[in-house]
Amino acid sequence: MELLSEHGCHGGVQRFYQHQSVAIGLPMRFSVYLPPQALQPGAKPLPALFYLAGLTCTEETFAIKANAQRFAAEHGLILVGPDTSPRGAHVPGEADAWDFGVGAGFYVDAVETPWRMHWRMESYVADELFQLVTRELPADAARVGIFGHSMGGHGALVLAQRFPQRFRSVSAFAPIAAPSDCPWGVKAFTGYLGEDRSRWAQHDASALMRAQTSAPFPAGILIDQGLADKFLAEQLHPEVFEAACEKAGQPLTLRRHDGYDHGYYFISTFIADHVRHHAEQL
Amino acid sequence: MELLSEHGCHGGVQRFYQHQSVAIGLPMRFSVYLPPQALQPGAKPLPALFYLAGLTCTEETFAIKANAQRFAAEHGLILVGPDTSPRGAHVPGEADAWDFGVGAGFYVDAVETPWRMHWRMESYVADELFQLVTRELPADAARVGIFGHSMGGHGALVLAQRFPQRFRSVSAFAPIAAPSDCPWGVKAFTGYLGEDRSRWAQHDASALMRAQTSAPFPAGILIDQGLADKFLAEQLHPEVFEAACEKAGQPLTLRRHDGYDHGYYFISTFIADHVRHHAEQL
Repeated sequence: MELLSEHGCHGGVQRFYQHQSVAIGLPMRFSVYLPPQALQPGAKPLPALFYLAGLTCTEETFAIKANAQRFAAEHGLILVGPDTSPRGAHVPGEADAWDFGVGAGFYVDAVETPWRMHWRMESYVADELFQLVTRELPADAARVGIFGHSMGGHGALVLAQRFPQRFRSVSAFAPIAAPSDCPWGVKAFTGYLGEDRSRWAQHDASALMRAQTSAPFPAGILIDQGLADKFLAEQLHPEVFEAACEKAGQPLTLRRHDGYDHGYYFISTFIADHVRHHAEQL
Repeated sequence: MELLSEHGCHGGVQRFYQHQSVAIGLPMRFSVYLPPQALQPGAKPLPALFYLAGLTCTEETFAIKANAQRFAAEHGLILVGPDTSPRGAHVPGEADAWDFGVGAGFYVDAVETPWRMHWRMESYVADELFQLVTRELPADAARVGIFGHSMGGHGALVLAQRFPQRFRSVSAFAPIAAPSDCPWGVKAFTGYLGEDRSRWAQHDASALMRAQTSAPFPAGILIDQGLADKFLAEQLHPEVFEAACEKAGQPLTLRRHDGYDHGYYFISTFIADHVRHHAEQL
C-alpha cells in the first residue's frame, strides 16, 4: 500500500492509496477516511464501511462529493472507497462506452474473454481489498458494512448477499436493483458473464433476494431513491427488489424522495442517515 | 437568467444559471442554492451569501465540494457562487497559466490591455451579479454576506471593504491576504492593474484594512487557515492581515489548524462555522 496523499478532514485524515492488486493484475487506487478515533494513541479497531461508486466514477468521487466524512467522524467509522474498474489494462474497446469497460466494472468477476483477465472486481473488493484494509488499517474485520450508488448500489446489495460473513450491514442510493432486467445490466452481464442467465442471477440483487430462505439482514436494509432520477424508470427498478425483500421476509426501508435526481446533491442530502444506519448495526 | 440545471438538495434546490453579462461582455455562469425556506409559498426575502472560489475553480466547485447547502438549509441562507473569470474571450495567452487569465480573475477590474475588455470581475460580482440575484431571486439586498477561498478569500476580504454597504458580513478560508507581497498577487496585479502599486493597494485586503479609520465589520471577521497548507508561507500571509486588523481595531478570529491543507477537505471541515458566522450577522 503506497500512500499517495493525505488531507486533514473533520479531525481525521482522508487518504488515497495505490497498491498492486493480485486479483486485478494491475495497480489499483482506493480512498480511506480515518476518523479522529482511529488516530488516537492505543485506538482499538473500528468498524469500517465500504462505498462502491457508480458508472464513470473513481476512488475520488465519493470522498470529494458525498461529505460522508463529517458523519464517519461523529460515529467513529472508517470509510473505504475502491475504484470502479481496472485501469490501464489496454483491452481493445475498454473505453469506447461509459457504461461498460473502464469505469464500469459492475463488481463482478468477468468470465468472458477478453475481460476475465483483469475485470475481477468482485474478488478485488470482497476478498483482496477487504483483507488488505482489515489487515493494514485499524479496521475490525468483524464489523464491516457496505453501501453504494447506482452501479455501486447494485454492487453493495449483491456483495452483501454473496458475502454475508464479511459485510454485516448494507444500504444503497438509487441502486441498479434488478440488473438482469435493465439495459445497463443486460449489457454488462452479457459482456462480462456471457449469455447464460442462470449466471446473471448470482449477481442480481433481486434474484438473490428472491432465493433467500430467511432474511439475510434482519436489522434491515436502507435504500434511498429520488423520484426526479432520470434513470429510475428504465434502469433502476427498486420495486423489483422491494417485492423480493417482501417475499424473503427481509426488512427494507425504501424511501422515495420527490424532487431528487441521480447525483451527489441527492446523496449528500441523505448521507447522514446511511452512515448512522451502518453505525447502529456495526 | 437562463436556468441550466436544478437538483434537489437538503430540502432546497441547487441551481446553475447562465446570463449575458454586461460587465464582462460575455455569457457568465453562476450557482445558486435556494434553501427550503425560499421555496415555501409566500416566503419572505432571505439573507444571501456570496462565495468566491479560488484559482482554476468554476461556479461548480463550491456547490460540489464544500457541502455548504446542509448548513444554508439549516439557517435559511441563499448561496451564490460566480465563476472565477470570463470564459470564451479568446484573449491571446488567456489559458497559458493556471494563475492568470482564465480561472484567475482575482475579482478586480483590469485596466491593462488586453484584459480590460472582459476581465472586470469586481464590477461583475459586486455590482451586476449582486443586483441580478437580489432582483431575480428571493434574496434581501440589505442582508448579503461574502466569503471565499484563496484567491476568492482575497476577493471576499477586498470586496467587503470596498462595498461595505452591499456586503454586511465577511469570512475567508486560506485567503491570499496580502496580494501585493506574494507571487500570485504580484503577477495578477501587474498583469491586470499595471505597475502602479498605489492602484494595487486599493485591491489588497491588508492595505485596505491598514487604511481603515474604524472597524468596518465590528461584529468580526472569521478566517480559517490550515497549517499544512503548502501555499501558506509564500502566498497567503494571514499574519499581515491580522496585524492590519489589530491596527484598525477590527475584530478578527483567525484560526490556525494543524494538519489541514489548502483544499476542500479543509473547507468542508469548517464550512458549518462560516455559514453560522454569516447567519448570525445577517
